[in-house]
Amino acid sequence: MSLALPEPDHAVVRQRDAIVADLRRLVPHDVVIDDEEGRRAYETDALTAYRRLPLAVALPRSTEEVSRLLRYCHANDIKVVPRGAGTSLSGGALPAEDALVIGVSRMNRVLDVDVMNRTATAEVGITNLGISDAVKPRGFFYAPDPSSQLACTLAGNLGMNSGGAHCLKYGVTTNNVLGAKLVLMSGEIVDIGGAELDAAGYDLLGLLIGSEGQFGIVTEATVRILRSPEGARPMLLGFGSSEAASKCVSAIIAAGIIPVAIEYMDKPAIQVCEAFAKAGYPTDVEALLIVEVEGSAEEISDLLESVSAIAKQFNPSVMRVSQSEEESAAIWRGRKSAFGAIGRISDYYCMDGTIPLGRLGEVLQSISAICSKHGVRVANIFHAGDGNLHPLILYDANDEAQAERAEQAGAEVLELCVKVGGCLTGEHGVGIEKRDLMPVQFSPVDLAMQMRIKTVFDPKWLLNAAKVFPLSGREAARESV
Amino acid sequence: MSLALPEPDHAVVRQRDAIVADLRRLVPHDVVIDDEEGRRAYETDALTAYRRLPLAVALPRSTEEVSRLLRYCHANDIKVVPRGAGTSLSGGALPAEDALVIGVSRMNRVLDVDVMNRTATAEVGITNLGISDAVKPRGFFYAPDPSSQLACTLAGNLGMNSGGAHCLKYGVTTNNVLGAKLVLMSGEIVDIGGAELDAAGYDLLGLLIGSEGQFGIVTEATVRILRSPEGARPMLLGFGSSEAASKCVSAIIAAGIIPVAIEYMDKPAIQVCEAFAKAGYPTDVEALLIVEVEGSAEEISDLLESVSAIAKQFNPSVMRVSQSEEESAAIWRGRKSAFGAIGRISDYYCMDGTIPLGRLGEVLQSISAICSKHGVRVANIFHAGDGNLHPLILYDANDEAQAERAEQAGAEVLELCVKVGGCLTGEHGVGIEKRDLMPVQFSPVDLAMQMRIKTVFDPKWLLNAAKVFPLSGREAARESV
Repeated sequence: MSLALPEPDHAVVRQRDAIVADLRRLVPHDVVIDDEEGRRAYETDALTAYRRLPLAVALPRSTEEVSRLLRYCHANDIKVVPRGAGTSLSGGALPAEDALVIGVSRMNRVLDVDVMNRTATAEVGITNLGISDAVKPRGFFYAPDPSSQLACTLAGNLGMNSGGAHCLKYGVTTNNVLGAKLVLMSGEIVDIGGAELDAAGYDLLGLLIGSEGQFGIVTEATVRILRSPEGARPMLLGFGSSEAASKCVSAIIAAGIIPVAIEYMDKPAIQVCEAFAKAGYPTDVEALLIVEVEGSAEEISDLLESVSAIAKQFNPSVMRVSQSEEESAAIWRGRKSAFGAIGRISDYYCMDGTIPLGRLGEVLQSISAICSKHGVRVANIFHAGDGNLHPLILYDANDEAQAERAEQAGAEVLELCVKVGGCLTGEHGVGIEKRDLMPVQFSPVDLAMQMRIKTVFDPKWLLNAAKVFPLSGREAARESV
Repeated sequence: MSLALPEPDHAVVRQRDAIVADLRRLVPHDVVIDDEEGRRAYETDALTAYRRLPLAVALPRSTEEVSRLLRYCHANDIKVVPRGAGTSLSGGALPAEDALVIGVSRMNRVLDVDVMNRTATAEVGITNLGISDAVKPRGFFYAPDPSSQLACTLAGNLGMNSGGAHCLKYGVTTNNVLGAKLVLMSGEIVDIGGAELDAAGYDLLGLLIGSEGQFGIVTEATVRILRSPEGARPMLLGFGSSEAASKCVSAIIAAGIIPVAIEYMDKPAIQVCEAFAKAGYPTDVEALLIVEVEGSAEEISDLLESVSAIAKQFNPSVMRVSQSEEESAAIWRGRKSAFGAIGRISDYYCMDGTIPLGRLGEVLQSISAICSKHGVRVANIFHAGDGNLHPLILYDANDEAQAERAEQAGAEVLELCVKVGGCLTGEHGVGIEKRDLMPVQFSPVDLAMQMRIKTVFDPKWLLNAAKVFPLSGREAARESV
């Protein structure tokens, strides 16, 4: 892959042993990992095309330890890469040879569950599913549900403003988080937000969520928990064309029905997922929708009836409501294992653009044309209800020319998303992957303003600074006021 | 009232005629108001205790005119106070003698209604209710509903992150806005956000909403519109004590039922509103709840049944479901005219704190004790479901000592809100009113960081700069990094 990574500061790399010794005076010995084998485990994230062996890795156990580590790095000009579970698809957790990785995986305790105020507070190393597990006995759940929810941490969800299949109804991370404890690069600890709808002063919490580890390290967060619905049920809708499926999605949304999820899979995706997960998908349709609704038994049947009535206008060849818990679980297992299933048969480049819903059919056709032009195959599997596309561009990583063409096709797909009025990223973040595409979305004034806000939180640009903004022209942009 | 306002820059005031002449070369003659009578109309907002005659007033008709005005002011170090309809209860639109007021009231067109993507785009001078009126024929509405919705503008709603009675279910302004066109103090025009759930780069839109006119002037915004529910119905619950009513609110929320609204009125508020609006409220109860639910006829009756079953545990003396559209309208007319009705019988100081819901009963008792101690009366009328309190502290503005005591009681009430884990402001903003209380909520580090973000957008601190942050120690704080 072809993205430039900054040249490491060799002076810092040469002083590795001294830095590790310093760090071990600040935190318990086993917090710092410095042997090569240990560091190797942190050399990449889920964007495995890029790898860098970090300077060292720290796995602190408390906010206080995070504060000591950051204060030291700030004082000594050492770069820091924050890390959750390392499931980032955009390279958000990619290390650097001159950077200390600070991972929060050991900080994973639930601190408080407050049913009355419908909040839960936890350390951010907790997994996404771990939050729901903790509140489930009280009849609640945490709404955002990335496919990686078994592994990914609240830390990464906050950094990337993660979404998931069920965000159509419940919103993404930023709509479900109320407060955070943030350690600034200076080591100072601040509490941002609280258990309220509004807050005095500027909305720093909103700014923080989705800032990709560039403002500090969050160690604890308070999230909104929701009462679990009485029940939920998916239905499958199979169509003979992507156009019919796209129109059906738009018609459901335009009718004012908000299912919990509307997921879209095209034929290549269906076939791979079905072979892998035995989800019971029809394999002879061109496009499959999974539409899930929830509520009381009565509401569920009312809603499925409305969805069915709309779907019929677009001549579905399959229309099947799940008849049991087992069937529902299989349907979702297929969807949630999609990226893994496709990864078994091919290397892929996972796009994450968003588009206005009304443009879905036309954009799918254009994506197909772009991939044909570059001689690469594509599988589409995504959150259709909110217009968040995930074209998976398939290629052979051993064929360098094909990898280049895949990357080029990916860039054109994202440019297309922006052109029709959408966005470069729906839920995976910019990271390293979309860094150089930011000027497609943002004007120089926009980028300069964002970089100047980065400077407020991290004056020396030490925190995850190789990401998000194009490397060239940074200095000039930051000073152009 | 006793808040210090900054001394105007007399050099600027002396050059008023030259400045007005300059402005009239940039924009059509009638955009600029400079006669004393004309300016007098803009000397205050809904926090009428403070008045200042502005340097001049501009009422531009386009983004381009706003840009020209701001560019001139930026180049010539002239302060600017942005203004919507002037309904701010915290003095957010209070002018200054050395500042140009830029009002957006003439920019009130609906630009686009997109049912498929459930969005509407309008110029920000449109009234809050105007947005709902524009989309009503298509079966949609805009959710946030401040009591002043007939008059207040989208501009002010964005500046203050406004809420309203129905925000319990639908969230406040920040949860319902997708994009904005922002004119920076430099005159540059940037588009922030878009019609998507997430965006690449930092969440500048979230940061912008609630920034109280300190980052620039928004001229257009794209908001989320929601499908109107099939129907809605309020019920009245009267209790013999504030404690019973408070417990009932908590029990409804803890049961996982989210009505559209749960409004609370105490006896003084009930009596004044009933006398004014003939809403049909029971006048012999200590506390009244208005609980509104919505949905299909069946859902409404299911939900009201659940609410009634919970309420019965707290021995209500009145439990009455509205039986007609007229009755429902009367119930809401009473609530929405409350501030006006109370204003007819007394001057008042309207608080706007939030608290964790579980502390409601105890906080109401403490508010009562604080007001007794200072010898002022209080009427409570607020959004109980989301813990957003509005104690109205009654006083006689002609009695300076009493006004001082009212202000002191108000400060103690807000300190109490912060102490129990809540916030200085729920929906009215900080403005001038709560400016000097910000250190109660925020640490010096928090405030310094917020002020440095202000500097990113407005390096010379010209935009609404007398508000939000305490006047003393600003310079030091901004430079302390």
